[in-house]
This record gives sequence, C-alpha cells and structure tokens, in this order.
Amino acid sequence: MYLERIDGPQDVKALDRAQRVELAREMRAALIEKLSAHGGHFGPNLGMVEATIALHVVFDSPRDKMVFDVSHQTYAHKMLTGRKQAFLSSDAYDDVTGYSAPQESAHDFFTIGHTSTSISLACGMAKARDLVGGKENIVAIIGDGSLSGGEAMEGLDYAAELRGNLIVVVNDNDMSIAENHGGLYENLRALRESGGKCENNLFRAFGLDYVFVADGNDIDALIQAFERVKDTDHPTVVHICTQKGKGYAPAERDKERWHYCAPFDRETGKPRFAQSGEDYGELTAQWLLDKMQTDPRVVAITSGTPGVFGFDKDKRDRAGAQFVDVGIAEEHAVAMASGIATNGGKPVYGVYSTFLQRAYDQLAQDVCINGSPVTILVYAASVYGMNDVTHLGIFDIPMISNIPGLVYLAPTCKEQYLSMLHWAIDQNEHPVAIRVPADGVVASGQSESTDWGQLNRYRVVRRGGKVAILALGSFFGLGMRVAQALERQTGVAPTLIDPIYITGTDTKLLDALTSDHDIVVTLEDGVIDGGFGEKIARYYGAHPTMRVLNYGLRKQFLDRYDVEQVLRDNRLTPRQIVQDVLALN
Amino acid sequence: MYLERIDGPQDVKALDRAQRVELAREMRAALIEKLSAHGGHFGPNLGMVEATIALHVVFDSPRDKMVFDVSHQTYAHKMLTGRKQAFLSSDAYDDVTGYSAPQESAHDFFTIGHTSTSISLACGMAKARDLVGGKENIVAIIGDGSLSGGEAMEGLDYAAELRGNLIVVVNDNDMSIAENHGGLYENLRALRESGGKCENNLFRAFGLDYVFVADGNDIDALIQAFERVKDTDHPTVVHICTQKGKGYAPAERDKERWHYCAPFDRETGKPRFAQSGEDYGELTAQWLLDKMQTDPRVVAITSGTPGVFGFDKDKRDRAGAQFVDVGIAEEHAVAMASGIATNGGKPVYGVYSTFLQRAYDQLAQDVCINGSPVTILVYAASVYGMNDVTHLGIFDIPMISNIPGLVYLAPTCKEQYLSMLHWAIDQNEHPVAIRVPADGVVASGQSESTDWGQLNRYRVVRRGGKVAILALGSFFGLGMRVAQALERQTGVAPTLIDPIYITGTDTKLLDALTSDHDIVVTLEDGVIDGGFGEKIARYYGAHPTMRVLNYGLRKQFLDRYDVEQVLRDNRLTPRQIVQDVLALN
Repeated sequence: MYLERIDGPQDVKALDRAQRVELAREMRAALIEKLSAHGGHFGPNLGMVEATIALHVVFDSPRDKMVFDVSHQTYAHKMLTGRKQAFLSSDAYDDVTGYSAPQESAHDFFTIGHTSTSISLACGMAKARDLVGGKENIVAIIGDGSLSGGEAMEGLDYAAELRGNLIVVVNDNDMSIAENHGGLYENLRALRESGGKCENNLFRAFGLDYVFVADGNDIDALIQAFERVKDTDHPTVVHICTQKGKGYAPAERDKERWHYCAPFDRETGKPRFAQSGEDYGELTAQWLLDKMQTDPRVVAITSGTPGVFGFDKDKRDRAGAQFVDVGIAEEHAVAMASGIATNGGKPVYGVYSTFLQRAYDQLAQDVCINGSPVTILVYAASVYGMNDVTHLGIFDIPMISNIPGLVYLAPTCKEQYLSMLHWAIDQNEHPVAIRVPADGVVASGQSESTDWGQLNRYRVVRRGGKVAILALGSFFGLGMRVAQALERQTGVAPTLIDPIYITGTDTKLLDALTSDHDIVVTLEDGVIDGGFGEKIARYYGAHPTMRVLNYGLRKQFLDRYDVEQVLRDNRLTPRQIVQDVLALN
Repeated sequence: MYLERIDGPQDVKALDRAQRVELAREMRAALIEKLSAHGGHFGPNLGMVEATIALHVVFDSPRDKMVFDVSHQTYAHKMLTGRKQAFLSSDAYDDVTGYSAPQESAHDFFTIGHTSTSISLACGMAKARDLVGGKENIVAIIGDGSLSGGEAMEGLDYAAELRGNLIVVVNDNDMSIAENHGGLYENLRALRESGGKCENNLFRAFGLDYVFVADGNDIDALIQAFERVKDTDHPTVVHICTQKGKGYAPAERDKERWHYCAPFDRETGKPRFAQSGEDYGELTAQWLLDKMQTDPRVVAITSGTPGVFGFDKDKRDRAGAQFVDVGIAEEHAVAMASGIATNGGKPVYGVYSTFLQRAYDQLAQDVCINGSPVTILVYAASVYGMNDVTHLGIFDIPMISNIPGLVYLAPTCKEQYLSMLHWAIDQNEHPVAIRVPADGVVASGQSESTDWGQLNRYRVVRRGGKVAILALGSFFGLGMRVAQALERQTGVAPTLIDPIYITGTDTKLLDALTSDHDIVVTLEDGVIDGGFGEKIARYYGAHPTMRVLNYGLRKQFLDRYDVEQVLRDNRLTPRQIVQDVLALN
C-alpha cells in the first residue's frame, strides 16, 4: 500500500505515474472507509483526491503555501502531509479536525470553516511575501459553490491589483451543497462546454490569467496545468472540472445528500443510525409550505443551505417561485429580504447562527434602520449546535440583539415557535428574528394565542418567592430543573420566568420582583458577554438588595467539545447553579 | 427658472429638449450654491444631474422604483421629486437628509448610506413584484466605486437568476472616493475605451444584458438608452460614463478632495472654515510612515477611505507598496490582513466604526479564531462621530468586544494611542483593535512605556473612596468632570479609573474596590447594551453591597442629532450623573 508509506509531499513526488493512480485509489478507499464509520464531508473530498496529489507533486508545501476554501475538502491534503493515520486507523480518526488546522501541521496555515475567504487570505500571504522579498507560490483552492460569496469576488477583484504570483485553483464540480444559483454558474458552464474558450470569461473580466483543465480527476493533466502556472509572475486562475463524490456511486448520483454524511452502510449507502423524532427544520418547511398556499407573498430564502429549514429538493419544488436560494451570499440574502418586504412580500430567511455573522451590516442597515418586516430564523444557535470552532452558534445574542429595532424571540417549545413564526410573517411593524431551539423539539401541548407584538412581556410560568429564574429559550428546560432542585433543597418554590424577548427588558415585571425576591438568576444558551443576562444585571445594578447571577458560556472559542463537559465548566448544571444560589444566603 | 416649477417627475416629462438642458444648468447652479454654504457630497451629485433628469423622463416614479446605491448622489433626484426648496432656499437646506429617505418622499424606498446594497435591494423589490404580479420597472443606480463591494457582486450574480425586469444603471465616473482599485476597473476602462464592445464584459459574464452610453451627461443619449431597456423582461446593465464634479472646475480637477465638501468659497474653492489643531488621522499616517521606513513588513490597509487615517495622495505615494487600498471591500480587507500577518507582515487596517460592521465575520473567523496579530484602528467610534443614521459609530463595542481573542483598547490621549499602536504592531500574540478617540486630540504630556500585553490591567488615575468611576476611552474627560463635581459636592474624592481594556475585566482591581467603595459608575461612548459597563454590572451582580450605575447611549438609531442634546437625553452630563450617584445614598 502506497498510502501507508506517505509521510509527506516528498513521498508523493517520488511516485511514478501509475503509482499515483494507485495512491488515489487507496486514498479514496480510505476516505469511504473512514467516513462510513465516522461521518464527515463526503462528496467534496472524494472529488479532490487527484487534484490534491497533483498539487503536492508540483508545489513544494509548506514553502509554497496552499489555502483551502472552507477547508472541508482537505482530507486528502491531510493524508499526504503526515496525517495519514487519521484516515487509516479507526483509533486515530479523531486525531484530525474536519478542516485545515495549523495546530496539526505546518502544511496548514489557517483554521477555516466559512466559505469564500481563501482568495483574500492568499492575497494577504502574497502581499506579505512581496514585502519581504519571498519567492514562494501562494495557491488558493476554492470550490465553485464558494464563488458566489461576495468576499470571494472581492478577492478575485483585488487579486489583479496584486500583480505578483498568485494561483487560484477553482474546483468546479458544478454543485454547491445543493445546486448552484447565480449568473456566474452559467459562465462556468459555458467555460466547461467550450473548453475554457467561451466569450466573457468571468475570471479574465476580473483581470486574471486563466487556464482550463477539462478533467480535474486526471492527475497527469492537473500536473501539467500546475507546472505551467508554477512560479508565475501574475495572478492566474486554474479552472479544473472535478466530479463531486467520485468513486462512490450513491454520492455520484445524489450529490446534495452526500455533501456531508453521517456514518453509513457502505453496501447500501443507508445511514447507520436512523434519525428519529421531530425536527424544527422539517416542521418549519411544512408550516411554510402550508402558509405559501394561502399567501402568495410568502417567500422562503436560503443562502446555499436549504436543509437548515427543511427544504429538501421535493419541498423546494413544491414551493416553486416562493423558494429562493441565492447561493452562498448571506449579505445579498438579507438585503434582498429587505427589498422583498419593502415591496409587499413576506420574506422568511432561514440561516445558521454562525453564517448570520456574515450579514451583520445588512441586518443593521438594510433591515433594522429601515424597519423592514423581515423574518429571520436562526438555527443551531446553541451550545447544542455545531461544535467545530468555525461553526459555533453561541455568538448570535451579543451580535444581533444589541442592534436597535430588531425583535429577537426565544421560543421554548414548538407551539410558541410556530405561533411566533405566524405572527412574524403577518405583522408589518418589526424586523423579527427567532432563535430556533437546537436541542430537539419540545411540545408543551398548549395552544398559543399570544400577540407577540405586545413587546417585551416576559411570561411568569410559575410564581414563587425569594429567587426568580429567567430561563431563556432553549435553556428553559434547565431553568425548570434548577427550580425543582431549589424547591427540593429549600422548601421554597422559586419564580420561574420565560423571558421570550431577547431584545427587551420587562421593567414592570423586574420591578415587581423586587418586592418578594432578592436573587435573580438568568440562564442563556450562548456567550454571556454582551448577552441577555447582563442587561438584567445592569437593570438591577443600583438596587440595594437584589442580587443577580448570570449564567451562560464564557467568552471563548470552543472546538469539538463535549457539551456536558462545557456545561460543567461554565457552572451550568442544576446542581452547580443551586449551589451558587444557596451560597448567597 | 424651470426648477422652481418642478413639483414632481410629471413636470420634468413636460419639458422639451432645450428646457431639460436648461433645467440641468439650473440644478447644477443650485447644487453649487447650496453645497458651498452647507457642505455635502459634491462630486457624486454634480455628475448625476443629467442621468437623474433622464431617469425621471423615461420612468414613472414612484410606480417604477429607483434604488440609489449609497444614496449620497440623490440630491438631483430630491430636486425633481417635490423637494426642490431644500436646494433653493437656504432656510430649507436642512429639510432633507443627505441620503434617500422614505420619510421625505414616496419616491424614496430605503434609508441607505453604506455602499453596494442597491442591486440586492432591487432584486428583492423585483422578486416581490413578480410574486404579486406587478409590472413596474425596478431600477438600481450604482456607482463604479460601489461595485468592488462583495454585496454588489453577489447582487449582480443573483440578478440573472431573477430573470424578470431589473435595470442596473452603472454610473461610471472612474472614481471611488479616491481612485478605484481592483481588476474590474480595468474591465470598465476597456468597456469605455471600446464603446462597450471589449472582450470579457464583466456584466455579460454574470449573465446580464448590457447597454453602453458613452456620454452619461448627455440627456438625450440617456433617454434613448433608458427607453430601450424600459419594461424589459430580463436583467440589464446600462453602463453610463459620467464626469464626477462636472460643472465646477476645481472638482473636475481634484475629484478625491471634492467627493465631499465642507462649506467653501465658490470663487476660490477654499474651505470657509479652516480646520485647526491636531487630528488623529494625520498623526496616525505620519507615525506609520515613520514606522514603515524602519520596518518593511508594516503595511497600512484601507477599504476605499484612505482619508480615515490621514493617507492623502502624497502620503500614499510615500508609503508605496506599504499602502494598500483594496477598494470598497471591507471583508476582503480584514481577511487579507489576516493573510498578511500569517505570512510575517504587519498589517494595520484603518476603518470607520460604521463600516467595520461589514467585516464582523472576517474579524471573528479569519482574524480572531486564527489569533492573527492584525491591528485595526477604529475611527469615528463615538457619539461625536458621523451623525447620519446610516453612519453612526456607536455600535462597535457590543459588536466586536464580545468576540473571543480580540484585544480592544480604548486610549484616552495621544500618548497612550501611539504607544498602543506601536505595541500592537510589534507584538505577535493578539488581534488588536484600537478605538481612536473621536472628540479631538488630547495630549497628556506624559510619556507612555506601558506593556499593553499585560492584559486587562485598569489604571487607577486617582485613588479616592466610596465612589469609583470607570471612564472608558473618549469618555475619560467626562469621568474627570464627574469626579471633580462629586468631590465639590461631597467633599470626598472618588476613585477615577482609566479601564483601557474594553475586552477584559480587571477582577483583581474590581475586588479591591469593594473594601472601601460602594458605588461604581461606568461611562462609555457608545450604546450601553452589550457594552463595557454591563460586564462590570454582571461582575458585581451577586455582591451584597456594591451598586453599579452604567452610563452610555440607549440602544436606538439616532439621526442628524445634536450631541449635547443626546448626552442630556441619556443622562450623560456631569450634573445628571452626580445627581444619580447622590440619589443612591
């Protein structure tokens, strides 16, 4: 087996043509083996095997520097740069992250997980090289799906200005996570169909040189192309056409489903662990489809992740013109939503907490300053969300809840959530975001008929005394457990409050609490700095007797963590919280 | 005079060819008259007079909907849509804002002040129109400078996907605020030089139809082009070439200086009010130029606003390759800075607080997760900053200080500032942002030799008792006045603290204060929600006796405000603060 003998790029360079082809076969087999047991990004990595081999044959990593966009396609790169064991030995599967990781290897330069950044990062490396008189090649590797992100196009635009050596490998597999959307993909198609020779080459329009490789899974053709641009003195795009999911038939057929995989059976392609129970994504898509039937103004928007709110291919087809995928373009999505609302439409944007970060300014300017009645559904905003450092969903409360004009709601159960969604779409007064719970669907069984437009009215779920617990959104369950434990230990039931409104303070209720409470506990499922609880602490700051304990996550980047451990480290277990409360007495 | 008789677009339509030319002359004269007395965006508006007339002749506003990018070029549009008095009568000059404003007129649809959003907003309006079966034209008007923003390119990319009517007027005056930067401007140049017929048309590469107008100050040619695309059934770019500053010789010659003007003498072009005293921008550029001489790794970066940190044309030339203008592309600027730092450079990015909003994700992901030692200088981050609702600088503390890993510093004087800048560039440990004071340069006269890398050590400027005042950054002067007033009234000097570190809590000092203080006052020059003071309130939340008063601005959008009034409204005068403190006793 060749792969077992690869300790670094020098060992790849030493192989002959036939051996490289065999190496690719072995790598693909190892990928399928590991991913079927472990899960991970499937299609993007299977497509990049040959290109990664060719890159390491031609360039001299880490002297030459490769920056992988999103970096979820770096498994092959990791195999060839001293980390093969993490793909060959099941004991070592978790020794590497799913993204490029400087702490693992000198061949990785950035921790990356969001799309469309690689060209800008590479431009910076090239600029620094030129300032100090270096000579290395700087290579950005970016998928076609990532090109629709504005930052990628800013990078393409700026690259020409750099003038010096910069190589942008465009890995065109004709797919984003789902199908691509946007005019540039017609240009990529025309380039593919014309062998790179069509009119109006987008990359040349940005002032870049351009090389076309028809078969991006042909190692020899790739080596030839890379040799041609190596040590070039000007920025050049190498457009390679690869097959996403290559080498595993189910993934070649259904590219969207196989972008990412949970552990699966290799024979059948079926997931090993059946998902069970309700899911907020599916609930949302179904509810929206029903709503669309009666209201042609309702339009669901995604920026490249339709699955986040349950819009699989079938549901997208059923929604028709009432479903919009703008491609990976969060800024455009949010501004477009404002435009839709301004002209009488009812936009609903479904987005992961971590990707909403890309549209802060559009949310503040285009939506909130304009008071556009846009509905934004924020998913995986929780310690229970994605746990890679680049995909954390714990920063959205400080990020967006301090923007004036936004109504940010934290439902605690499915009934509240759907009622809020209904209200948000039908009203015309406020931009509304809803923090969709991320720790499974909880049904209260109680119908909701609240007018959520009566802003900032917290709900007293149970009136008690001495201690009041403000348990926000997905931490409401934690609040209930704390309340029960406190009552057990002290014999006095605390007051339990569902605050609902992340963006507002119910001053009347907070004032009323002072009459028979002397401790307020706040719980929120996110970073505590700049969040909900601190506003309560501020409100009571000058009060002579009320004491406030804020609970949430410390301000820090977590990575591939165990949730229970993180909760303990942040004193977020019922037992710890009760301890702290009792210590105040 | 024709202009006096224009109450709306119907009156423009009624004019004949010669009368329209005369109208343009009158409009230009009125613009020069008003702006020489009042100040405002000069070059962009003088260039757009003819195009605005032609738009209102051909399209049927407000049924047809125009969205102006940045909207600082809408003065002519305002003149023709019922707001002429604000340009003819000095008493009425302030009746209109400097940007499009739905509250002023049914012909304006959005409050806009940041660039690159118009195509996305227009796409949304077109989408809503198509959902409800409308037939109106949707027209985005965007300057060439705004095209380099990623959001604009996301919009261009998505427009093709819309298929229906959408007209994008690209107003190409071959300038951003300063000169343009990026490969796309070579394409615009080639289009201009070839009469719109060059190879690799960028707009066609995005899948859009394209019409070229060589003289965008020729009303007849513009009318002809707009007639051609009116009611089109597919997205079309109309590329018009205009002259920025047309009709005022000094502005035609020096386009950068005349992008925006303060009141000036019409004969000489000289400002009426001389700027006096030091300026943090100029101080910064001068200091950086000196630093660059001894360190070739230092590189100053701007995203289209070199003036923010004092880099006029002369200083840019002196910096040479050590100055980078990426065009209006904040995302790229921040990611590129991370790339520079990773490859051994020393990037310093100067940016307005309001525009840093566009790079939240890059700051979090590319810089902070990666721990890249990037220096970011945040300007006009203050109630004393720009006062249009779209340009407020009061949101940066909640926005960026809650991102892990960032060291955000608040200097109180020039000596601290330059010492921090020096440290930030030389160190390799932290991403550092510095909140440059915005209310004039204060010199302490004391040399600074602090090691700012000893993080989160607040500075006790004067040790007193009972009350401690934590006065952050540009509100340190306010803190001094509060301290003096308190001492006068109570006979007891309070403790005055310069917290310096926005992003950290000096728990040792805060604990020590509890021994002989029972009130802590925090002061910060920005929105209080999610800010610095709330962290202090949280820290003392469970303390039995310490009481905390947080001062800052309420979470709200302000617009064209009087600073003193806003300070009073937020109880930010020394007298009000002292009142509040005394009321606690």
